[in-house]
Amino acid sequence: MAPSFVTNGDVAAVKTTPFAGRLASVYSEVQTSRIDHALPVPSVLRSPFKIVDGPASSAAGNPDEIAKLFPNLFGQPSSMLVPNGVDNIGSDQKLKIGVVLSGGQAPGGHNVISGIFDYLQERAPGSTLYGFKGGPAGIMKGKYVELTADYIYPYRNQGGFDMICSGRDKIETPEQFKQAEETAAKLDLDGLVVIGGDDSNTNACLLAENFRSKNLKTRVIGCPKTIDGDLKCKEVPTSFGFDTACKIYAEMIGNVMIDLIAELNEILAHDVVDENGLWKKKLTDQSLKLFEFLPQAIQEQLMLERDPHGNVQVAKIETEKMLIQMVETELEKRKQEGSYKANFKGQSHFFGYEGRCGLPTNFDASYCYALGYGAGALLHSGKTGLISSVGNLCAPVEEWTVGGTALTSMMDVERRHGKFKPVIKKAMVELDGAPFKKFASLREEWASKNCYISPGPIQFVGPASNAVNHTLLLELGAQA
Amino acid sequence: MAPSFVTNGDVAAVKTTPFAGRLASVYSEVQTSRIDHALPVPSVLRSPFKIVDGPASSAAGNPDEIAKLFPNLFGQPSSMLVPNGVDNIGSDQKLKIGVVLSGGQAPGGHNVISGIFDYLQERAPGSTLYGFKGGPAGIMKGKYVELTADYIYPYRNQGGFDMICSGRDKIETPEQFKQAEETAAKLDLDGLVVIGGDDSNTNACLLAENFRSKNLKTRVIGCPKTIDGDLKCKEVPTSFGFDTACKIYAEMIGNVMIDLIAELNEILAHDVVDENGLWKKKLTDQSLKLFEFLPQAIQEQLMLERDPHGNVQVAKIETEKMLIQMVETELEKRKQEGSYKANFKGQSHFFGYEGRCGLPTNFDASYCYALGYGAGALLHSGKTGLISSVGNLCAPVEEWTVGGTALTSMMDVERRHGKFKPVIKKAMVELDGAPFKKFASLREEWASKNCYISPGPIQFVGPASNAVNHTLLLELGAQA
Repeated sequence: MAPSFVTNGDVAAVKTTPFAGRLASVYSEVQTSRIDHALPVPSVLRSPFKIVDGPASSAAGNPDEIAKLFPNLFGQPSSMLVPNGVDNIGSDQKLKIGVVLSGGQAPGGHNVISGIFDYLQERAPGSTLYGFKGGPAGIMKGKYVELTADYIYPYRNQGGFDMICSGRDKIETPEQFKQAEETAAKLDLDGLVVIGGDDSNTNACLLAENFRSKNLKTRVIGCPKTIDGDLKCKEVPTSFGFDTACKIYAEMIGNVMIDLIAELNEILAHDVVDENGLWKKKLTDQSLKLFEFLPQAIQEQLMLERDPHGNVQVAKIETEKMLIQMVETELEKRKQEGSYKANFKGQSHFFGYEGRCGLPTNFDASYCYALGYGAGALLHSGKTGLISSVGNLCAPVEEWTVGGTALTSMMDVERRHGKFKPVIKKAMVELDGAPFKKFASLREEWASKNCYISPGPIQFVGPASNAVNHTLLLELGAQA
Repeated sequence: MAPSFVTNGDVAAVKTTPFAGRLASVYSEVQTSRIDHALPVPSVLRSPFKIVDGPASSAAGNPDEIAKLFPNLFGQPSSMLVPNGVDNIGSDQKLKIGVVLSGGQAPGGHNVISGIFDYLQERAPGSTLYGFKGGPAGIMKGKYVELTADYIYPYRNQGGFDMICSGRDKIETPEQFKQAEETAAKLDLDGLVVIGGDDSNTNACLLAENFRSKNLKTRVIGCPKTIDGDLKCKEVPTSFGFDTACKIYAEMIGNVMIDLIAELNEILAHDVVDENGLWKKKLTDQSLKLFEFLPQAIQEQLMLERDPHGNVQVAKIETEKMLIQMVETELEKRKQEGSYKANFKGQSHFFGYEGRCGLPTNFDASYCYALGYGAGALLHSGKTGLISSVGNLCAPVEEWTVGGTALTSMMDVERRHGKFKPVIKKAMVELDGAPFKKFASLREEWASKNCYISPGPIQFVGPASNAVNHTLLLELGAQA
């Protein structure tokens, strides 16, 4: 019952890590408890296993074009780790593996790296793991650090990408490919794990194709990372970080929803008391200011800001204010028509960065570890151009499957500047998918009633600590 | 390991509450687990107890003026519940008690009401508890609901004030006092519990004085509520909601801090690659726009918006943008002087409503329940003009003390419109207090190093679930 941290008046130090990485950081009790948390892992990873290939693969669209763009990789089978009395992968070869974090942060990235590291320790002892610093730029510039047990330890089960940091650069021009080749040669890399979203995994596949076409030994395996949830297919049921981020945002939204219920009532109660309605005039002023301010800013945001992949930076559009403004405009119109008499005050809340670096949920911690461990196995067995894939995710962790999916099988082409460009098909909201159908069946009720399920803060022990997110439950339930 | 909620494709319903209050709400697993959580309570509340009075009290300042303003209440002793073989409070009297929530929401308010209710059930059976709806306006307008076991149940240990909602109105004019008297007479109220901040408790004391001066039987007890932490004294070591809100904000800040560490590195890494620095120009554009936009808005916010207590609504000032703007202005100046060459981009995060309605921590849940239960005991023993006070808060819950503090002892006067007005002295940051001294001893290090302790999400079970917040630890440690 008594707090386990110091009670002698010192603010600090549940534990000061004596390690190279988070050297200056002080850890909280929850963070500390997570570092040494015994992670459940798929049972296949705890036994000798072998890798079994499936049938030849195709592409998500335009297979002929994809075949032309990836002559060495197109058609590769997907792979699966299956338990076997004798481990048929691990020769005595010591591996040199690089790992890079690409794009925005997502909870669990450190566990992917932990999984790769532990694979090498357990199944290819004497191997070396390099972490490229600051994203793909680290590969091109040859900026890296050797990842040791001590270096990795304080990041286990922790949020953030700060172990080796990330970046949004692309390896795409012939010069950039050459820089990557030089770094791979200099470090004598047997393999590279690219942890990133759809664009980064497309890049990973182009790099794999490039290395293979030049008969270089470096193989490339991708890992699906994004809190957006738009990188998935049948064999990659979700991307890591999505579960944690959803739960963080859902907690905050739950808190605000409960707040609004009472706040609305307060305003209505106040309306009765404040007979002269002075406060209404103030609100209308404010709304008008918002009206005058917003559209131009949003237009400028749309026009000015593109990320290095050419994407509009949607997160920078103040959607919440735009929606308020649209509602205000509509209500103002109705008011002038005489069909609306009340007053509307929008209170915007924007949730963005709060979800990217949270402590990974139990789900994401185990999922990421399995992705990393599996990536190690795939590289060890000589695979390239696959994305690490962990499946059966609604079952207990022990029953999860581990394997790799041909990146080319997830691709289609887009026509840009008169050329076909390969792209991993974005997983958009599928209007005939189970989650949207569920939403459609409920949205009328949800529009008029307060049905929001407020999940509360993420728990690591006890009730709900192993809850599977609803998107995954619905999608996998529908497949079953 | 399997999730305990439905896996048949239904999004809904861990539990649909069949109760009057949160009728349409659907509860999450964590919320549900909290409803039936067996709350630790101070052991004195589990035994027969009696109430022992201390010495006569004075005021926080200008005792002569406070004595004039509260002729019937000034000098009252504080009270303490002490274990006793025979409960000397509870006559067989059935009580009629009202409760009101006043001002902004804070985690734990529902538990104060639960505590009052349970006191009445256990120690004054046959009593009635009325909840005034929408804050003090509910008292003046006679808007109330009878709170039954079924009505209260779904709100136990839950965040928000939506059980009876809150409001910011004051009872201050002679007409308003008369309305309150009429409601008290109509409901035959023996007592009223006012749950609110410093202004609301000042009001509670004025109401107590008014009732007493007119020989009305209705007594008034306050409860200290505010996430701001500015309502406290030696006998009221903290106000409820502060612990939960701090921990929610600290989690979010921790997430963003970890994000920034890597983001800064990404920008630096990017800086090397993006030789022509186009992105910098965009940022400067944005900053300039911010510069042009903000000051006027802040001025208007300062001038336009006051709450009914006349306070500037500080939360509506976009402090985070103002600070960014000030840094930009300074750096721009230095750049023109040639003493600064880099680029600064501020990313603002505002945390406000996220913390007001979270699930109360174990600390706040127990603290609030004890406040409410104690308020019931104080009213039952005939006390008025006290604020419910729970102490010894760094010890295990069982060892907490429960009592009441004379509200007049917390008061000083302010001169407004040529008259003395009583105010509960706001607990500001004390520059010679233990928390600030600790901060002062560390701020230089904190300014240059990353020492933020990232607490992770609030836990209800396991590590850190009973952690006492550092402010309280330092303040109570310093007193001991």
